[in-house]
Amino acid sequence: MDAMHLDAMCVFYPARVSYLTGFHHVPTERPIALVLGPNAYTALIVPAVEKEHAETIPGIDRLDVYFEYPGPEHPMERLGVALAEVGAQSERIGADHDGFVPYWGYRGPGLSEITGKAPVDAEMLIETLRRVKSAKEIECIQLSCDWAARAHRRMQDSIVTGKTEMECYAPAAVESLADMVREMPGWRPRGFSGNELPAMFVAGRSTAMPHGFVRGHGVQKGDVLVTGAGADIDGYHSELERTMFVGEPTAAQERAFDAMLKLQSHAIETMSPGVPAAEVELAVVRLAQELGVGDELRHHVGHSIGLEAHEAPFLDRGDEAVLEPGMVFTAEPGVYLKDVGGFRHSDTVLITEEGRRVMTDYPRELRDLVIGG
Amino acid sequence: MDAMHLDAMCVFYPARVSYLTGFHHVPTERPIALVLGPNAYTALIVPAVEKEHAETIPGIDRLDVYFEYPGPEHPMERLGVALAEVGAQSERIGADHDGFVPYWGYRGPGLSEITGKAPVDAEMLIETLRRVKSAKEIECIQLSCDWAARAHRRMQDSIVTGKTEMECYAPAAVESLADMVREMPGWRPRGFSGNELPAMFVAGRSTAMPHGFVRGHGVQKGDVLVTGAGADIDGYHSELERTMFVGEPTAAQERAFDAMLKLQSHAIETMSPGVPAAEVELAVVRLAQELGVGDELRHHVGHSIGLEAHEAPFLDRGDEAVLEPGMVFTAEPGVYLKDVGGFRHSDTVLITEEGRRVMTDYPRELRDLVIGG
Repeated sequence: MDAMHLDAMCVFYPARVSYLTGFHHVPTERPIALVLGPNAYTALIVPAVEKEHAETIPGIDRLDVYFEYPGPEHPMERLGVALAEVGAQSERIGADHDGFVPYWGYRGPGLSEITGKAPVDAEMLIETLRRVKSAKEIECIQLSCDWAARAHRRMQDSIVTGKTEMECYAPAAVESLADMVREMPGWRPRGFSGNELPAMFVAGRSTAMPHGFVRGHGVQKGDVLVTGAGADIDGYHSELERTMFVGEPTAAQERAFDAMLKLQSHAIETMSPGVPAAEVELAVVRLAQELGVGDELRHHVGHSIGLEAHEAPFLDRGDEAVLEPGMVFTAEPGVYLKDVGGFRHSDTVLITEEGRRVMTDYPRELRDLVIGG
Repeated sequence: MDAMHLDAMCVFYPARVSYLTGFHHVPTERPIALVLGPNAYTALIVPAVEKEHAETIPGIDRLDVYFEYPGPEHPMERLGVALAEVGAQSERIGADHDGFVPYWGYRGPGLSEITGKAPVDAEMLIETLRRVKSAKEIECIQLSCDWAARAHRRMQDSIVTGKTEMECYAPAAVESLADMVREMPGWRPRGFSGNELPAMFVAGRSTAMPHGFVRGHGVQKGDVLVTGAGADIDGYHSELERTMFVGEPTAAQERAFDAMLKLQSHAIETMSPGVPAAEVELAVVRLAQELGVGDELRHHVGHSIGLEAHEAPFLDRGDEAVLEPGMVFTAEPGVYLKDVGGFRHSDTVLITEEGRRVMTDYPRELRDLVIGG
């Protein structure tokens, strides 16, 4: 903030408020704002529904509780008071967004309407910090990877033909949740969607769409499955995805799987400190062209992961970031063939001083991913 | 748009894109934008991961697919092309937000940076439409209410002491999901978080916080439970919440429950066409003061519901809306006592020509909500 000559900084985006304060909350239309002033002064504006929760957060100098949104006076009018209190000049106020980021039924004034000046764009001030994970954050992500692998194993063992996707994965996922509760006393999801299952999959032709929905069809011999598993550890996430087959794959499926596996291995080998994020994708694209699947890519190679399921920077030809030790990415190049299926593994990968460490411990080879084969 | 003298309108908020086009999608950092021009001209900008899905949507004149975010050229640069194509003058462009609403790792230019002018705030143009539900939308919400009641009944029948919250509700919720799949062939969640369970509850002291997290503790005799049940029908939601007791409630709990029930009944009776939304809350506050629980309220009386779990307008003293037939609200005044528990029922209520119709069919009386009593 000093380097940017800011008197104060307003933070609106929920994950950034969590990151800076430890105040994890479920975002709603009720605006929450963090105001940072000189000498680590910290003010937090919250609705009454979060009062008791916010009171447990250490390091907040001023907790300002409004009753409700919209209320007779717009809650964000309180920003003016908090900013005046730290003597912030309107041209020296930074923010990560011009006002609360709208969600659900929220509608409200931009910070610029409250102060009369457009705020200084200081989003990267926080984002730069978030990109490199601390030892404590890496520990949470590792534990998340370990639980994801357990939940995925249990799910894989529960898949049988004839049952719908949900009937296969939901009981296994619920048992995994119960294990988490039992083995980590006091554990609870802290994130933004705490009610999710730790393992699921999509079957059949809808896998050819990278973000296919569960169709609820019965799992059939010949299906390609694309799975997902994760776990929320103190608000931190990881990603484990596998392409699996019900029965022996066709020759075309085996070729697509093989290409995908080569692309993922290549992506992971390329990831090292000092390598541009863009170069990781470009290396994968070059190999995809060599393998004859260059036109079958539908997305970049991966994204950062941490407090949010997707974070910047991205393993993407247009990203200007350079990999640094402590960054955590997913490595998940995918190959999508309309009548054959979608082929994607995703592993969570930590950039280390020496290169990289794959945090996900789960089989990647075809022979380990055939069900009832 | 004609009345506001707009040449074009840009829509960024995901639920509004769904509402106007039927293109339901899971929001990510990959920006999606809808551009509306004269004569119902419709352009949709989507990432490659949504290509096949977007191609199934009727009524799109121009589908512009970019490969990926961030990409070598920012995807939102395409807005300029789409706007030029309809001959939009920069001072005659409306929008619901100044650029894509940031989510996950997204960072991008405001529309004002692309066109050189701040867009006309046209958010209410769409929101006004969304507030009054069509017959088709009401049908979806009613079906959602009916499934929620079934899932809640199954969950209520599964609660036993000694088990954790999740062990009680998850299997019942999964069975309800399986019923939905079986009885509604082709059904699938379309909304923004399709993987959620249709019924859950929070037990014990954390109910005293209106948005308490599941603690994972064992359910114990003497616990107050606050439940929630819902179902996604073609992207539409409903809300059913109940306060329940494990064993007979204490006198203090019974008093709080009784006050809450009176407040909810009063809220529902007050809801009629022509009544200001603010008046519904003020009527509840007045009764709460008479009943001696005026200081125990932590939020307003309710919110609209539809494509999103919370929508505007709100049953809130600061909301300027007036109730109209076709609006759908939750009615959920709550009473929160620190060492006693949280007390809240939520029912989904439709405003009709004659007054209102409670769409939720589930017992509200204490005697029906005591477990193992």
